[in-house]
Amino acid sequence: MYNIALFGAGRIGQVHSVNIAAHPDTTLYSVIDPFAENADKLATKYGAKIQTTEEAFADKNVHAVLIASATDTHAELIELAAKAGKAIFCEKPVHLDIERVRQCLKTVEENHVPLFVAFNRRYDPQFRRVRELLSAGNIGKAESLLITSRDPSPPPAEYVKVSGGMFRDMTIHDFDMARFIMGEDPVSVFAQGSNLVDPAIGAAGDIDTAFIVMKFPSGALATISNTRRSGYGYDQRIELHGEKGLLTANNIKENAVEQWNETGCTAAKPEHFFLQRYDAAYKAEWAHFVDVLAGKATPECSGYDGEFALLMADKALESLQTGKEVKF
Amino acid sequence: MYNIALFGAGRIGQVHSVNIAAHPDTTLYSVIDPFAENADKLATKYGAKIQTTEEAFADKNVHAVLIASATDTHAELIELAAKAGKAIFCEKPVHLDIERVRQCLKTVEENHVPLFVAFNRRYDPQFRRVRELLSAGNIGKAESLLITSRDPSPPPAEYVKVSGGMFRDMTIHDFDMARFIMGEDPVSVFAQGSNLVDPAIGAAGDIDTAFIVMKFPSGALATISNTRRSGYGYDQRIELHGEKGLLTANNIKENAVEQWNETGCTAAKPEHFFLQRYDAAYKAEWAHFVDVLAGKATPECSGYDGEFALLMADKALESLQTGKEVKF
Amino acid sequence: MYNIALFGAGRIGQVHSVNIAAHPDTTLYSVIDPFAENADKLATKYGAKIQTTEEAFADKNVHAVLIASATDTHAELIELAAKAGKAIFCEKPVHLDIERVRQCLKTVEENHVPLFVAFNRRYDPQFRRVRELLSAGNIGKAESLLITSRDPSPPPAEYVKVSGGMFRDMTIHDFDMARFIMGEDPVSVFAQGSNLVDPAIGAAGDIDTAFIVMKFPSGALATISNTRRSGYGYDQRIELHGEKGLLTANNIKENAVEQWNETGCTAAKPEHFFLQRYDAAYKAEWAHFVDVLAGKATPECSGYDGEFALLMADKALESLQTGKEVKF
Amino acid sequence: MYNIALFGAGRIGQVHSVNIAAHPDTTLYSVIDPFAENADKLATKYGAKIQTTEEAFADKNVHAVLIASATDTHAELIELAAKAGKAIFCEKPVHLDIERVRQCLKTVEENHVPLFVAFNRRYDPQFRRVRELLSAGNIGKAESLLITSRDPSPPPAEYVKVSGGMFRDMTIHDFDMARFIMGEDPVSVFAQGSNLVDPAIGAAGDIDTAFIVMKFPSGALATISNTRRSGYGYDQRIELHGEKGLLTANNIKENAVEQWNETGCTAAKPEHFFLQRYDAAYKAEWAHFVDVLAGKATPECSGYDGEFALLMADKALESLQTGKEVKF
Repeated sequence: MYNIALFGAGRIGQVHSVNIAAHPDTTLYSVIDPFAENADKLATKYGAKIQTTEEAFADKNVHAVLIASATDTHAELIELAAKAGKAIFCEKPVHLDIERVRQCLKTVEENHVPLFVAFNRRYDPQFRRVRELLSAGNIGKAESLLITSRDPSPPPAEYVKVSGGMFRDMTIHDFDMARFIMGEDPVSVFAQGSNLVDPAIGAAGDIDTAFIVMKFPSGALATISNTRRSGYGYDQRIELHGEKGLLTANNIKENAVEQWNETGCTAAKPEHFFLQRYDAAYKAEWAHFVDVLAGKATPECSGYDGEFALLMADKALESLQTGKEVKF
Repeated sequence: MYNIALFGAGRIGQVHSVNIAAHPDTTLYSVIDPFAENADKLATKYGAKIQTTEEAFADKNVHAVLIASATDTHAELIELAAKAGKAIFCEKPVHLDIERVRQCLKTVEENHVPLFVAFNRRYDPQFRRVRELLSAGNIGKAESLLITSRDPSPPPAEYVKVSGGMFRDMTIHDFDMARFIMGEDPVSVFAQGSNLVDPAIGAAGDIDTAFIVMKFPSGALATISNTRRSGYGYDQRIELHGEKGLLTANNIKENAVEQWNETGCTAAKPEHFFLQRYDAAYKAEWAHFVDVLAGKATPECSGYDGEFALLMADKALESLQTGKEVKF
Repeated sequence: MYNIALFGAGRIGQVHSVNIAAHPDTTLYSVIDPFAENADKLATKYGAKIQTTEEAFADKNVHAVLIASATDTHAELIELAAKAGKAIFCEKPVHLDIERVRQCLKTVEENHVPLFVAFNRRYDPQFRRVRELLSAGNIGKAESLLITSRDPSPPPAEYVKVSGGMFRDMTIHDFDMARFIMGEDPVSVFAQGSNLVDPAIGAAGDIDTAFIVMKFPSGALATISNTRRSGYGYDQRIELHGEKGLLTANNIKENAVEQWNETGCTAAKPEHFFLQRYDAAYKAEWAHFVDVLAGKATPECSGYDGEFALLMADKALESLQTGKEVKF
Repeated sequence: MYNIALFGAGRIGQVHSVNIAAHPDTTLYSVIDPFAENADKLATKYGAKIQTTEEAFADKNVHAVLIASATDTHAELIELAAKAGKAIFCEKPVHLDIERVRQCLKTVEENHVPLFVAFNRRYDPQFRRVRELLSAGNIGKAESLLITSRDPSPPPAEYVKVSGGMFRDMTIHDFDMARFIMGEDPVSVFAQGSNLVDPAIGAAGDIDTAFIVMKFPSGALATISNTRRSGYGYDQRIELHGEKGLLTANNIKENAVEQWNETGCTAAKPEHFFLQRYDAAYKAEWAHFVDVLAGKATPECSGYDGEFALLMADKALESLQTGKEVKF
């Protein structure tokens, strides 16, 4: 049984706490959160301790940490964990500044601890199946990929201001997905974007609608379509075209009931947002991390993956600002 | 080029006149309809003559007749056509009384003219494809068939009164479809029905909602689901289950556009009614009849098919009235 | 926290044990199964006791029993539980003989214990949504219902021999579903069936393919289409037609990935069988039973529901044998 | 009745001849094609004359010309027709060189004859419906558009060499579609492409796979996904996202039959190629041109539209070559 110290008891920390508790090989050992109310709630629910950061890292009973705290704390917590010899599961991103990410990954490397950067969508059974069918040769060589990723509704402008911008905050998942599906690192990126959804987002210096085009060493292409507001739920699809046909992962809908009447045939809209849509993915990534703890696997999403996705976001931003394709 | 005399210039006669004129080997030669206005309109549009019944049958230039007049005139016109040696295309049914049908078919047989009874749905490309895939062995042996057949909205009670009842008027198409798909004649039928849509239909002694179950010599089963009012267009589907899987012919929708929003994902409803839904079928059945005229084929829907479908309607009515399965 | 004694540690008992353990208000307290290996496995996994039937009923710490043992033990265990004052969750059916069911329900009533008969499909979110949308008036008055229920592959003939026949073993779920959706008890039933799938089933005196037609007091109709072998997974759909349109609950598919190539556009087949398909339903019915234990609800599926579904199976069998509609 | 002179009796000329003949107000008056065999076939079928170019333009009975000849003859034929005072229906493109296009359009303008440039997809009922629902306000303001346009299989390299390149030959339809749907001219374009399908296409200096991103004055974005070889038929879809949701035009499939078995649920693939897919569009565009002849309409697709689509192709090529977004 592995004892897990959870940093961050907010929305995403709560998701993980359920999975930590439900997994037969892990226990939610302690919760660390400066906001005491959230920490207490989780600690009570799962019989966990309340710890400070220092206590958690000093505690020999802690086998691994799950970092689900505010983004700007990730890098430091990773370094402290690495130095304390704890295995690390960290929500993306490691940091919004790529130099800081590299510095942090160096510390991890020097301390020989496993680091899993949680790109949860890689564990979505639908997207994973597309990757597996590609690997199995079902469509031959991959030629073009379309990723549709639309949030149901925009975040508040206050959040946008500290988010690092849409590419680093939202598109980063799609950048990683492109690499996961294609199985190679892109050679160039072009980005085009607009502020159409909420003027406050534009006032905060960000965009809310974008198309991104990438090219890969094989010549294969990928595009990402993003918006901060779909108007019909969380739209998460991919479509992969290869030499022998197409693989497409459709949305998961809220239910399987249709109503037919004078106005047409109406099916449910997509699952509302990531907590529902990626429920299975959160469970599966945790199971993978437990395999890492058990020495049965090495992290499928490594620090390098976290770093490369951020690099793609940075280069996309450069492209948006210059109107040019940017090479890696 | 075959000259066609068209009996009946109403709605269904107009459908056929388009196809007669469009076919490279047929000409709309004359129109016969006591209602002069309709006849004139068609004659003018296609450069056809106006004829009386007597003139049409006496005219050596008429190669074939298409009977699309009122139901109660079909049998007599068939007999007159047979005696005049004209090939016959007749809208279903031959007659609502089965003894009259048999008498009429005897006359046809004695005069050695081809008679095609127009069960148009056999020529629908969707249903035909199901039959062909069954014949090709795609699902192995047929085991059960579900026919869904729902009109968009009920006919006026005046029509219902002279229609022969729902089974002879509407379900007769589905009875024929069951035989067409299964490729065998049923051994028994059970019918259950209700008057739910329009009280005037009940007052006219008829039902408007029904389920019918048939058994075939092979042991295979079929059911028909009927209503006079769907509320969402013309619902025409079949689902055929066999030992190795399922074949299903879905509805043809009004268009391929979907709208996704807060209320769900809405696709178009099915094509409104038979003129739109079976447009391709009307063309294809006419092409078949021209093959019959050319001696390249014998009628795929014969007088026997017309008689058997009516017999099924009669037996279904007997079952509805007695609460018992009726054998053939 | 309610302590649950689980009778039967086989396939379905294992399903329930997961849900008992996962629910915050219930504990798997003990397991009772003459087949020690299964019982040990579950007891070890969940830290439960191994008990004999006598011990379980005598144990004051047991608040409720979950009966998932062999069908022929249900009635006796229900009676013992009722006399011991334990709340009862029982897998369907209570017994295959309706007189025995009535006797058993009488004992339950005399002992004032709650009895939940587990028609799990009532808790399937899809079917429940159809019921709710009907209740909300979305399609007006219900007029006809089609239930499609096809197992992926037939059970062994040995099982068939002791199953009570397809109607009591398999269709019983569909009979209950018809009552659940329509919200009224039927007035008549007609059944037609064949042995098409496996001759051994016919040799055991049973059928494997059936259509059943029911009529309800409102005049509404329902039909059930059954087969023991679909060839494409577990086919569980309902289609409810009302005066203002249609509600349809489609299959839950194994995944949301499609492959398009020269042979067509292929989507996943339905979830393989009931354990996958009704996973959410098993969880939801347990949550309901916990509400019953907490006094927040009375059993939505009562002994009466269990009795009526069996009665429908008996009457359907009578209809199959006589070729007549049978009244209730 | 309008007499039409048809230039070009090849594949696309044959499509138009059917529609000219079928329209109540037009007659196929003459056919002009240096390849006598094709011309004879059409002339015989429709009772048309064989003419030379000079004869056709000198013939007072010719009301309009339909130019479906080789691409490099379009501009000259348009000029001759304009000078002869004939109304002009011309297959796209006017010419592959934009200066030549402009020169040609000047001649048309000076001679005050109507010119319809046949972007047939604007008349596809599906895409038109998307445009109409956008205009009707169904999704609010347009924000992003995805056009998927994939040919079933690549053209021969010989064709590619004289085609003007994929953007001028194939994508030109999608460029026009983007303007048609968005209702505004783009301000910039970026293109990325690869040669993945057939090395002979690369050897001919062309690409066969591309993504194109456009920006519009409103800030709205559009992307086009192209390949010369889908592997599953002709993939022609659009997806338009707006502030209140999504409109999507799906493929038209070869039929509405599905087969479900152990390998999944297989529906038909998309209609094979443009002759089938855009059959309704060809009819509708001809009906529009007849309205132009009758003075009831002005050409919806004008010379300007032809010129702008070509300009987009030119700028896209410039972007592909420079790796930069190109402004209009």
